[in-house]
Amino acid sequence: MGVQMFNHRGPEFAALQGRLTEGLKKVFQTKNDLYILTTSGTGGMEAAVVNFFSPGDHILSVTIGVFGDRFASIAEKFGAKVTRVKAELGKAADPAAVRDALKTNPDVKGVLVTHNETSTGVTNDLEAIAREVKAAGKLLVVDAVSSLGSLNLPVDAWKCDVVVSGSQKGWMVPPGLAMVSVSAEAWAANAKAAMSRFYFDLGQAKQYAARNQTPWTPAISIMVALDVSLKMIEKEGIQQVFARHQRVADKTRKGLRDLGLSLLADPKNASNTVTAAKLPDGVKGEELLKVLRDEHDVVLGEGQGPLTGKIIRVGHLGWVPDEDIEGVFAALRKALPKVGFVPAGVK
Amino acid sequence: MGVQMFNHRGPEFAALQGRLTEGLKKVFQTKNDLYILTTSGTGGMEAAVVNFFSPGDHILSVTIGVFGDRFASIAEKFGAKVTRVKAELGKAADPAAVRDALKTNPDVKGVLVTHNETSTGVTNDLEAIAREVKAAGKLLVVDAVSSLGSLNLPVDAWKCDVVVSGSQKGWMVPPGLAMVSVSAEAWAANAKAAMSRFYFDLGQAKQYAARNQTPWTPAISIMVALDVSLKMIEKEGIQQVFARHQRVADKTRKGLRDLGLSLLADPKNASNTVTAAKLPDGVKGEELLKVLRDEHDVVLGEGQGPLTGKIIRVGHLGWVPDEDIEGVFAALRKALPKVGFVPAGVK
Repeated sequence: MGVQMFNHRGPEFAALQGRLTEGLKKVFQTKNDLYILTTSGTGGMEAAVVNFFSPGDHILSVTIGVFGDRFASIAEKFGAKVTRVKAELGKAADPAAVRDALKTNPDVKGVLVTHNETSTGVTNDLEAIAREVKAAGKLLVVDAVSSLGSLNLPVDAWKCDVVVSGSQKGWMVPPGLAMVSVSAEAWAANAKAAMSRFYFDLGQAKQYAARNQTPWTPAISIMVALDVSLKMIEKEGIQQVFARHQRVADKTRKGLRDLGLSLLADPKNASNTVTAAKLPDGVKGEELLKVLRDEHDVVLGEGQGPLTGKIIRVGHLGWVPDEDIEGVFAALRKALPKVGFVPAGVK
Repeated sequence: MGVQMFNHRGPEFAALQGRLTEGLKKVFQTKNDLYILTTSGTGGMEAAVVNFFSPGDHILSVTIGVFGDRFASIAEKFGAKVTRVKAELGKAADPAAVRDALKTNPDVKGVLVTHNETSTGVTNDLEAIAREVKAAGKLLVVDAVSSLGSLNLPVDAWKCDVVVSGSQKGWMVPPGLAMVSVSAEAWAANAKAAMSRFYFDLGQAKQYAARNQTPWTPAISIMVALDVSLKMIEKEGIQQVFARHQRVADKTRKGLRDLGLSLLADPKNASNTVTAAKLPDGVKGEELLKVLRDEHDVVLGEGQGPLTGKIIRVGHLGWVPDEDIEGVFAALRKALPKVGFVPAGVK
């Protein structure tokens, strides 16, 4: 990313944006419009809401954790009436519950869904949920911040209207960019959407995209990095990228169970990008994470929201070599006994 | 910026954010709270509006060009009633006109001002305008995206309540970060401010800043670059940085006039970061910029908004060596005759 910055109104930038947009569409598996925004994933989620709804609109929010709650909160802050479809923490959303909620609430304009819930390590069955939402004729808005580029999400095949991702996840580049795809049906909703917006106005992004520019100054250095990582993804092949995530995730889950830890996620919906393990009785998460960080240079995630102090989370998204995952197991084998838990196989 | 990304919830990030916040406060010359947002300057401007006003509020917007108009538009999009105090393009705002507008509109809650208008190359007399605004007891919100770090703006001495800057300008790092300072009076306004916000909610930023974190994932790579450039600014000394901009600006203005071009800005308010020169009769800006870019590798700015096709703009903000400015003059001496204007001293 150390290249000399260049003018974002010049031909070099236009070529870069054109290349990135086409490359991203391949990974999104979409022919829809796609925009790159300078913001983190949460800003992308805001863009995915405020451009398509109006204050007072009734929105269904499928939430199975912290990031689902965040999506619902954004809609509420901008004036929507939000009905939440929840699941027990560690479980995926039930597509039948979504169908029922849509029947009970025929005035719903659209549905917000988290594809991959990072706070619990659960991947929703988006294909099944999407089928229900589109059968009911509603707008489908997907938070794919922590899934796209790592998990299969064929945007067009599943008929997702608005899909948002973020640069620091499966794309393997530093945080600072969000990407949003927009279907024709979403554009039709946009024409009537009255939520307040300026920086995140995708109508502006659309106008400038016609000449491969952005309305506001873009984070060029991160776009240059994305250019490199998209080439790496294309070279490997996206199906191979998905398979690699599956393999590393299987290895992570097995290794954690072998240590005697129980996993939070229902096995049939366990995420291939992050795994949450329950803390054994008496083990303080904060202490464990500190020993791992200070003595083993291993950084794991803590529990968020209601799971604070109850779980640890191992990320395995983007490029994670086998040695890194094995290093996590080795560190846990040494660190756990220091905080009051003797792992299986350790004397 | 090629460092390995690190966890934004860990101690390394907290130390970085603490160091950047203190370093930025020195350049802002403020003891107010200060936050770093992952967005471009326009997002920072949105944050500076939506956190301090409510829909229906009457706001005065001092606009002398494209960026002033943008500030006013943001306030309107989020439901404010905006009264504009304008000036002729190329002129600075008249502090007496601001005083009069405040007298005529006693219900005004706050005033938006652009410190340095990049589209015309004019720097407003912010000190005098601030005096009028604070004498009237109104909230003062300043767009310093293209001035802070290059031009003197003592935030506390001039009693500016909210001041926003952007990383790609005087800070000499890539675009992607905005910085916003918030006074106690602004926080009091925030408590009653009802404009819709989520990603740009500074109340969230304040909560997380208590442990030197950000509510959403930050653009770490650009923060690492800013860490380096703040050390460079501190080493040079900010008064020396301002003096250097003055000297390079004087040289730019003299060089352009020596070529026989007339400058757009009123000399007493000419910006020390960007200079706009009027295109001579018959010269097409687009053609001139193309010759400069293709044959001389020199990228100048075009006119924006109503000045499209009427001016060219030479940027001299951040670290601009004398040779770069001399290179611009040399390129113009060769390029101008090709598009129909023989500069002074060229046969």
